[in-house]
Amino acid sequence: MRATWSGWGDPPPFPEQLPSLVPGLSGRETPAVSLDDVELPESRLPDALRKIARTDREERVLHAAGKSYPDLIRLRSGDASGAPDGVIYPKSHDAVLRVLEVCAAEGVAVVPFGGGTSVVGGVEPLRGSFDSVVALDLARIDHLTTDRTSLLGTFGAGLRGPRAETRLNGRGLTLGHFPQSFEFATIGGYAATRSAGQASTGYGRFDKLVLGLRCATPAGDIVVKPFPGTAAGPSLRELLVGSEGTLGVITEATLQLRPLPGMRRYEGWSFASFDEGVEAFRQLAETHSAPDVARLSDEQETRLAMALSSSGSLTDKLGKGYLKARGHAGGCIVIAGYEGEPDDVTMRARAGGRVLRRGGGLFLGRRPGESWLRSRYHGPYLRDALLGRGVMVETLETSTTWTRLRELHTAVAEALGGAMAARGTPAVVGCHVSHVYPAGASLYFTWMGEREQGAELEQWRAAKTAAMDAIVSNAGTITHHHAVGRDHTPWMTAEVGEVGVEALRAVKERLDPAGIMNPGKLLP
Amino acid sequence: MRATWSGWGDPPPFPEQLPSLVPGLSGRETPAVSLDDVELPESRLPDALRKIARTDREERVLHAAGKSYPDLIRLRSGDASGAPDGVIYPKSHDAVLRVLEVCAAEGVAVVPFGGGTSVVGGVEPLRGSFDSVVALDLARIDHLTTDRTSLLGTFGAGLRGPRAETRLNGRGLTLGHFPQSFEFATIGGYAATRSAGQASTGYGRFDKLVLGLRCATPAGDIVVKPFPGTAAGPSLRELLVGSEGTLGVITEATLQLRPLPGMRRYEGWSFASFDEGVEAFRQLAETHSAPDVARLSDEQETRLAMALSSSGSLTDKLGKGYLKARGHAGGCIVIAGYEGEPDDVTMRARAGGRVLRRGGGLFLGRRPGESWLRSRYHGPYLRDALLGRGVMVETLETSTTWTRLRELHTAVAEALGGAMAARGTPAVVGCHVSHVYPAGASLYFTWMGEREQGAELEQWRAAKTAAMDAIVSNAGTITHHHAVGRDHTPWMTAEVGEVGVEALRAVKERLDPAGIMNPGKLLP
Repeated sequence: MRATWSGWGDPPPFPEQLPSLVPGLSGRETPAVSLDDVELPESRLPDALRKIARTDREERVLHAAGKSYPDLIRLRSGDASGAPDGVIYPKSHDAVLRVLEVCAAEGVAVVPFGGGTSVVGGVEPLRGSFDSVVALDLARIDHLTTDRTSLLGTFGAGLRGPRAETRLNGRGLTLGHFPQSFEFATIGGYAATRSAGQASTGYGRFDKLVLGLRCATPAGDIVVKPFPGTAAGPSLRELLVGSEGTLGVITEATLQLRPLPGMRRYEGWSFASFDEGVEAFRQLAETHSAPDVARLSDEQETRLAMALSSSGSLTDKLGKGYLKARGHAGGCIVIAGYEGEPDDVTMRARAGGRVLRRGGGLFLGRRPGESWLRSRYHGPYLRDALLGRGVMVETLETSTTWTRLRELHTAVAEALGGAMAARGTPAVVGCHVSHVYPAGASLYFTWMGEREQGAELEQWRAAKTAAMDAIVSNAGTITHHHAVGRDHTPWMTAEVGEVGVEALRAVKERLDPAGIMNPGKLLP
Repeated sequence: MRATWSGWGDPPPFPEQLPSLVPGLSGRETPAVSLDDVELPESRLPDALRKIARTDREERVLHAAGKSYPDLIRLRSGDASGAPDGVIYPKSHDAVLRVLEVCAAEGVAVVPFGGGTSVVGGVEPLRGSFDSVVALDLARIDHLTTDRTSLLGTFGAGLRGPRAETRLNGRGLTLGHFPQSFEFATIGGYAATRSAGQASTGYGRFDKLVLGLRCATPAGDIVVKPFPGTAAGPSLRELLVGSEGTLGVITEATLQLRPLPGMRRYEGWSFASFDEGVEAFRQLAETHSAPDVARLSDEQETRLAMALSSSGSLTDKLGKGYLKARGHAGGCIVIAGYEGEPDDVTMRARAGGRVLRRGGGLFLGRRPGESWLRSRYHGPYLRDALLGRGVMVETLETSTTWTRLRELHTAVAEALGGAMAARGTPAVVGCHVSHVYPAGASLYFTWMGEREQGAELEQWRAAKTAAMDAIVSNAGTITHHHAVGRDHTPWMTAEVGEVGVEALRAVKERLDPAGIMNPGKLLP
């Protein structure tokens, strides 16, 4: 299964109440062109690649972009002018190596392609200084072997989330990695982008799950052996994880697994304010009693979620009277999810609950949690519906220490709101905390406003730039789990410094001397 | 406080029962020469450095080596022919940068020096292709600021373990990092070598505690900001951690702290066999109920420890009759230590105890645990006593997955035993597991035999080579927490592969184009 060329998949109905919530929303129809009307440049490939590449319209358009807002705006308007010249589906690590050899010799750029779900331009098929570019789709490299004793699995990079989980679950195991892109994203993509999933507070970010890697680079293979702990120098594992296809192609990863949980308990809680909720989450982290899924929506996001909740599960117990009587009208909702053996889940939910209650939390029962769980992958489908009705909708994420978290939250929300208002398209900006660490937490922003017809990308760039500048001035990282891609490269020097960029560039030049690997990504 | 030039410190009496335990041990006196009799080459320094460097005998000898067996064998015999030409104590990050500038311009090698406790030749002042070398001792860079809200501390690299802990404890905090070198080792050294402490099963290896870093390189500064989680590309943090002074000088680290534990509970347990103990430890890891300190000695190490135990605390409850009646004669001892808030410690000790008991463990009460805790830093002092009585005594460590652990244990023990026997100096080889991960564990070997007079280094090299070859052929890492230094460089290619070495070399050449930083270490 893969996402549709113009978005995610089968969209739900447009929420007709949305224009009453977001100022200035017209709700006008803005449909995508049909696939046949997408403009596609001629394919230019050297003979050696023409024989093995697919060059049909659908394949090229499906690999012409990821799933960022600018990607979809361009594609839906019929612009696939940057589509790859061909799509190659190697069957094995060695086949990948051979393709890289040919591409380096012939001067063809290579974009490694997993699920194609990048929302930061990570799979945009830029040509760099070359005439041609191919997408290297890893879908056929999808093996899986498991070691139950050491709780390790060795995965082909092209294996997608659902298939991996189904196969693991059949063996009583789980990877526990559930990003919103779960239905389409691949193991290799998770590794290449330092993905974090919705349950990463408990299971750990994807970078923490990686023990071993196999990576094909133009300079040859790098094999990172799956040692549980090592002091053998700088970490090559951590150099390849997050390399976003710019150093080589990750073809295989050995990952930490867990026994399949015997029980899942998801709860809803309410806090009178975001500040109170943040402090309670900090206490959860400090006392090592954070749930596996820990999400706290700010006031704006809660208001939107309650208004849009179609199932009614959020609103029935959250009846305004109930919350108002307890001083939580206009407050913030929390989802707390615990997974594991029943005794353990019960004990941990009790410990977590004590901390939340002490911090001012109001227990809302399990229905809001279960409702969230059912709809955990719905966001991108809803986006398709909004894209069809003139809405600009976009997200970005960061993280910082607890000490700086509230300042950063305010600064980014104000930057987004200010930039959108300045263009005459005021936005609603919501945010949630979704990953909790001992030292701090992530912030995930969503904003919506009326789309500027004919100036969609300028509008997007104005808001994005304002937010990113606010992030780097307020001790935030430029990306918590979406990666750098193309969109964040202008802030990469602010993130790691000039000498830091030089160090990464040195590795890139050694492993990819021709510069064919995913040009225009990661490094400024 | 620093270690003595010829060893660690004030040695205990030689254990006179040792020759009855180790075949062929003579117990002959092998004293170190006096400091005045150590041979020291003339100091050769450019004027710019002569003004700021200390060049007196004691300083140069104190910085002439680390604390490995070959280091001490050479020094105790009066050979300081490789001593640095001078020792510089910079006061600040900027002063370090200036020293690097001068050294790069003048062609002087630089060895960053923390506690000088490397046991792998990591601070051996090799000159590389240069005429002179200076030791850059970071002792004066010892600031500390803490952020209680985010549980972070920012430490000067030269701060030593005890001073750091005292200052943190006064603020109700701990770093929880307690390697055997704790009394002398520094924060910068921990970071540069990927240290692991005795409590790292619970608190996490040092590399997991590092959030931020400041590093002075010949190409300029790298500042890694202390983000709790980030997806911004390959990890520069993980490139500098473990860089062993070959890329630059880590001058500051921002580290994850914990609240000072209100309770410490250390227990002793016994297992009938190492295999049973390993399986119980694996179960602890799988059920997330491992203690903060988890140590399991194999049969040989247990036998030695029981025989050498001076306090009698191991032997009184471990009376042979008691253990024999339970089928544990010749068995294996476990230390399980829990730290935290009292309720939490009680609950965790109960959970851990259930797993240990189910796995065949016999509870020996708290005295063996408390006895271990009192003597946790004694090992290197005892080594001084053995070095003075003709004993060859050395350690090495590795890790692998649970699946491969017992094979690796056997292979390394046989390699060490075989190599020593082949030289006519049969050895006792003991081992313990001291770090437990979900995927596997560490193995720490100690071996002792009669020292070969006049061929000490050849004897050492034969045993070391046999063990390292066994490690790389049996899925072990070449070092779990001692680092690569000089001694492990011949196996670095086996560890990370040729392309992996090239990637690291590329970074080295970019950050240190003159090649002055710690030549001869880390990279083959």
